[in-house]
Amino acid sequence: MNAPLQKVETLRWRNDHLEMIDQRLLPTEFKMVRFGSAAEVAAGIRDMVVRGAPAIGVAAAYGIALEARRLHVENEQTFKCGLESAFKQLAESRPTAVNLFWALDRMKSIWQSRQQEDAQVIAQRLLEEAEAIFSEDIQINRAIGRHGAELLKNGDRVLTHCNAGALATAGHGTALGVIRSAVEGGKKISVIADETRPFLQGARLTAWEMVQENIPVTLITDNMAGFMMKSGEVDAVIVGADRVAANGDVANKIGTYMLAVLAKQHDIPFYVACPLSTLDFSIATGDAIPIEERSGHEVTGFRDCQWAAAGVNVRNPAFDVTPAEWVTALITEKGVLHSPDTERLQQKFTCRT
Amino acid sequence: MNAPLQKVETLRWRNDHLEMIDQRLLPTEFKMVRFGSAAEVAAGIRDMVVRGAPAIGVAAAYGIALEARRLHVENEQTFKCGLESAFKQLAESRPTAVNLFWALDRMKSIWQSRQQEDAQVIAQRLLEEAEAIFSEDIQINRAIGRHGAELLKNGDRVLTHCNAGALATAGHGTALGVIRSAVEGGKKISVIADETRPFLQGARLTAWEMVQENIPVTLITDNMAGFMMKSGEVDAVIVGADRVAANGDVANKIGTYMLAVLAKQHDIPFYVACPLSTLDFSIATGDAIPIEERSGHEVTGFRDCQWAAAGVNVRNPAFDVTPAEWVTALITEKGVLHSPDTERLQQKFTCRT
Repeated sequence: MNAPLQKVETLRWRNDHLEMIDQRLLPTEFKMVRFGSAAEVAAGIRDMVVRGAPAIGVAAAYGIALEARRLHVENEQTFKCGLESAFKQLAESRPTAVNLFWALDRMKSIWQSRQQEDAQVIAQRLLEEAEAIFSEDIQINRAIGRHGAELLKNGDRVLTHCNAGALATAGHGTALGVIRSAVEGGKKISVIADETRPFLQGARLTAWEMVQENIPVTLITDNMAGFMMKSGEVDAVIVGADRVAANGDVANKIGTYMLAVLAKQHDIPFYVACPLSTLDFSIATGDAIPIEERSGHEVTGFRDCQWAAAGVNVRNPAFDVTPAEWVTALITEKGVLHSPDTERLQQKFTCRT
Repeated sequence: MNAPLQKVETLRWRNDHLEMIDQRLLPTEFKMVRFGSAAEVAAGIRDMVVRGAPAIGVAAAYGIALEARRLHVENEQTFKCGLESAFKQLAESRPTAVNLFWALDRMKSIWQSRQQEDAQVIAQRLLEEAEAIFSEDIQINRAIGRHGAELLKNGDRVLTHCNAGALATAGHGTALGVIRSAVEGGKKISVIADETRPFLQGARLTAWEMVQENIPVTLITDNMAGFMMKSGEVDAVIVGADRVAANGDVANKIGTYMLAVLAKQHDIPFYVACPLSTLDFSIATGDAIPIEERSGHEVTGFRDCQWAAAGVNVRNPAFDVTPAEWVTALITEKGVLHSPDTERLQQKFTCRT
């Protein structure tokens, strides 16, 4: 049933197109999908062909590069309006992950600094920037992995939620990057993966990534996390993040908040691994982070398998916010920040760009 | 897709057979299944055609009655051995819900007190006892409902887990019985139903029961409960129970423990509604309650829809244990016991039989 063993290339640039794994189909089917325009990429982000905050950022950057390549043969006005529309479409694709806006801002600066140049040159420069964002993301994840690995002991059983792996980034992963780096460093680590309803990123993606690399992984339903912690079977929790407010509050996949409450109750360290591009200093606290509500269809079943009683109302917030005080440490490419708060975050990370 | 509106008859005695709704098929399909022997009933309990602690008890009692009717034409030795084997098979069908053993004990006392009588008379008396257990269960649930309804305020939004409804009992329900009684008493109550992976009793059964009766119900995935509580959208949590230890520790569907931790964190009352037959004074604390581990196939997907990565390990504990200190009150047919502990439980309930 599963796709054959192969190196995970979540996104790649091939023959003037962006190609991405269709993550909705994994692990039943492994399929690379081609994207030729910003509109296609925006739809791919919205429909979750690609997901994971860093991967969304990289995809959006390529979306701009694609649009510039597509339109550079047109007249100046069409090129300009087309690019502006592309920025807008991509910015509206998903609201919570700030990496999307961060990547678009980076692409926009390149464009704005080159407005006088030839469209073909601008297009080339935008592609180079997207490629830089892509490559940097892998390097950043490797740095996150190095720093985070030091927090794990040999034999640790690490619970993770959703997928903050290679599939959520350009490669290596954030939360799973920490686990990978610890394993590469010779530590024996086993993973407990929450299935992560409704989209099942844990069961489908995290389990798949870990099985590919022979890292022992045990799947549980989301409501078993408390049982596992109470039974003494969890040594640490590591999750990714979609947006971190200036005070250290963390927006991440729905269910993360619950894990933080449970980890606190059981004195288990709760780590958040993310690139600095996930930090949003413009937002004071997590209360101001916009939380996406997705279609109820995701909750009443999975894919075409629908099981809920007809006529039921549905809620489907895709993310929740964990207060900074429950985060043991933030693991970034610039190192580990214990007990994050506004002051410590300012001190350590404000010279980030 | 859903079954037509009709009164829920979870179990019923018809034409010398036990008929039960096949709860594995709800709400997609509404099907009554006939059972003619103890072995068939034991398989039905094990495979979750019927589930819910009180309903399992009633089904097991009918299982004994069925077997006695089936064997009363045989010679004394065959009748005796057959009944003994029936008690054993039914006792082994599921380990956690104590109502199963309570009902079997009740049936066994009848049998043991009548050993000298004619097999046909014994069979008749066993059927009457099963019918008494059935009828009493409905009366008990109505009493639980009356007592519990007083704890709810008009307008309350009540979160529940799994299905402790008419489908989990002979009728009316325990946790949902409290909600039904509050609604019958003129209070406006809305329900938030956890979907309750892996068997999805919340999405399939609780949502279905509430929709049938026009009680407003909102479905969430299990990992959204923390979000809902933090957002101030939950006024009370009410769950059922599969076994309550002498100190008040509560074994109930996996995920209940997590809800208790979250409720405590948010100062939301956490109520457990159950008949006194769920109390097991022979077990000092919840640590000694046997927790059933079911097949991993339930966690890697649902029915024929399988989605998890091949090669992943799976855990599937069907229940967890919530410490008594986190239970705001136990709601029974004999009234509400606040802050249950060994002493209070002894005082209030030991003259129960």
